[in-house]
Amino acid sequence: LTVVIMAGGRGTRFWPRSRNRLPKQCIALMGERTLLQRTLDRVQGLVPPEQVLVVTGKDMSEAVREQLPELPAENILVEPCGRNTAPCIAWATVEIARRYGGEAIMAVLPADHLVDDEEDFQRALYAGAKAASETNGLITLGIRATRPETGFGYIRCGEALGEWDGRSFHHVQGFVEKPDRETANEYVASGQYYWNAGIFLWSVDAIRDAFQAYLPNTWASMARLEFEPTSFATLWDTFDAISIDYGILEHAKSVYVLPASFGWSDVGSWTAIPDIAAPSDGGWVESQDCVSIDAGGNVVHAPGKLVALVGVDDLVIVDTPDALLVTRREDAQRIREVISRLEHAGLTKYL
Amino acid sequence: LTVVIMAGGRGTRFWPRSRNRLPKQCIALMGERTLLQRTLDRVQGLVPPEQVLVVTGKDMSEAVREQLPELPAENILVEPCGRNTAPCIAWATVEIARRYGGEAIMAVLPADHLVDDEEDFQRALYAGAKAASETNGLITLGIRATRPETGFGYIRCGEALGEWDGRSFHHVQGFVEKPDRETANEYVASGQYYWNAGIFLWSVDAIRDAFQAYLPNTWASMARLEFEPTSFATLWDTFDAISIDYGILEHAKSVYVLPASFGWSDVGSWTAIPDIAAPSDGGWVESQDCVSIDAGGNVVHAPGKLVALVGVDDLVIVDTPDALLVTRREDAQRIREVISRLEHAGLTKYL
Repeated sequence: LTVVIMAGGRGTRFWPRSRNRLPKQCIALMGERTLLQRTLDRVQGLVPPEQVLVVTGKDMSEAVREQLPELPAENILVEPCGRNTAPCIAWATVEIARRYGGEAIMAVLPADHLVDDEEDFQRALYAGAKAASETNGLITLGIRATRPETGFGYIRCGEALGEWDGRSFHHVQGFVEKPDRETANEYVASGQYYWNAGIFLWSVDAIRDAFQAYLPNTWASMARLEFEPTSFATLWDTFDAISIDYGILEHAKSVYVLPASFGWSDVGSWTAIPDIAAPSDGGWVESQDCVSIDAGGNVVHAPGKLVALVGVDDLVIVDTPDALLVTRREDAQRIREVISRLEHAGLTKYL
Repeated sequence: LTVVIMAGGRGTRFWPRSRNRLPKQCIALMGERTLLQRTLDRVQGLVPPEQVLVVTGKDMSEAVREQLPELPAENILVEPCGRNTAPCIAWATVEIARRYGGEAIMAVLPADHLVDDEEDFQRALYAGAKAASETNGLITLGIRATRPETGFGYIRCGEALGEWDGRSFHHVQGFVEKPDRETANEYVASGQYYWNAGIFLWSVDAIRDAFQAYLPNTWASMARLEFEPTSFATLWDTFDAISIDYGILEHAKSVYVLPASFGWSDVGSWTAIPDIAAPSDGGWVESQDCVSIDAGGNVVHAPGKLVALVGVDDLVIVDTPDALLVTRREDAQRIREVISRLEHAGLTKYL
């Protein structure tokens, strides 16, 4: 079993705490360890660090190396630029094939998620690895949908495939994009839909076959890369930026889902934090001291400071040494607009 | 003519920018110079620095000395503790009587106000000094009420007294406390009421007579102080904390008002700033850079930082190295509650 941690995301939604050089996966939200470190911690005991690859971007590669000193330098693959998950996984596949051969199992994990029950997470990965090995299918973990979330993709669960390690696997009937609220309500009510957590298990052979069938150009270029290392960046630049879901999983035949419920969260924005952390008055305040008067539901990150809130509700307040963000929880997704304004104004020092 | 600047206020309403050791009068709001420095600047040319006394408190005396290097050390009177304006003015009166005798005119000015038209301000002081000298009355400046402000005291203007330097002076029919909104509307409509700006002119003889008549104990103790300097703090502590308005002006007979309209503001809270400064989108943002998206009417003080506001209106946001305040403009007066909470929690390092 090998692990591939996808750590290339910019995570602009946690700006200004997250920056280009220190994206979401590289910051410590709720705790001492960063999300990336916690992702590595989470597979400890299951695979040795030598069998963990991290794929990341140029901007953040320094932070990634610093945060994961236990990883051999050659296990950190630095993409010349972000090209979504398909090229990222293709590269990792080529690398693992070279080191361990076609029967090696890859567990692909995002670097910026949180898991409550880490033991159950490991047991699920273990069962998934077994199933991947025996079925030669592409396994995706489906998280039991506990609320009508409109920010996730969903997996429609089909008939039972079988059991591995006491866990039942199912055929996938289809992947669906982020639904509207009404559709999401139906999904949750039906009990047939699971959140797509972006956690996958497959053998090198199985994913290579799938690349050759559904993204043959990407695969052919990736194979060439091995022999033309000098032109790496130039070739990488030509890859279509496409997700593994859209490029392969939605088309491939032997795609199976392993329903799981180990307390997963993608920590999608500041607004999500009170749902994950033990909330105080429906909000979450991370600061040295806090005085809150007729205030509630605020999400505050201002470490080392006194924060005083009077008569304000449902705000997101993020304070850093050079930038201060104040917005409403319902507007937290609009941080992207701030990023875009800063880019246009040439204020890239804040990104 | 001598000037007495009353610089003892704590100015908690500008917390966390203002602190015990650096109260409102000692901070620079809208500009480079502090309110105290601008108060001294405002009388330049009218009186030499040697004839300006500043009465201030122990906590802030260091800041006051640093900010007014042109003032002789003996011109800064440091109160052992705050006792409102009557004892403060009594002490200054004793000091000026000793230096310049009973005929000296005192112009008493708060240290934490703003004035637009400084030339007109000086002309008004000059006329007031003349009237004070010739009438031996107590002159108070009345600011033409341009809006139904409920945070100020009002002066009811009576019949004309005469003209000095082309400015007409009037008898005062009475002082009134902060009115409710309806009453304030009537005051403005009547045209007979002026805001009490806390700016006074009188001769040493006139105010001494008034102290002896209406606050004889304070005056007697103050006179004793001259001869018992070692027990200064102990005696000062026994003074009633009473304002000059309530203790003397409301009772004295020869009290006159000089109507003025030189663009005065007491800068009463963060909320007041957009009314004084040239406002942008109805708000006021003091920061290194600012990105504002669907946001307006916010009062922001975060010097040296990028401030990003998304979807928030009418907030007060004050950022300092160790404390961050976020409140609503309508709640800005409630900063006092924060101060009180901090005191009770022993978090005095933030005060």
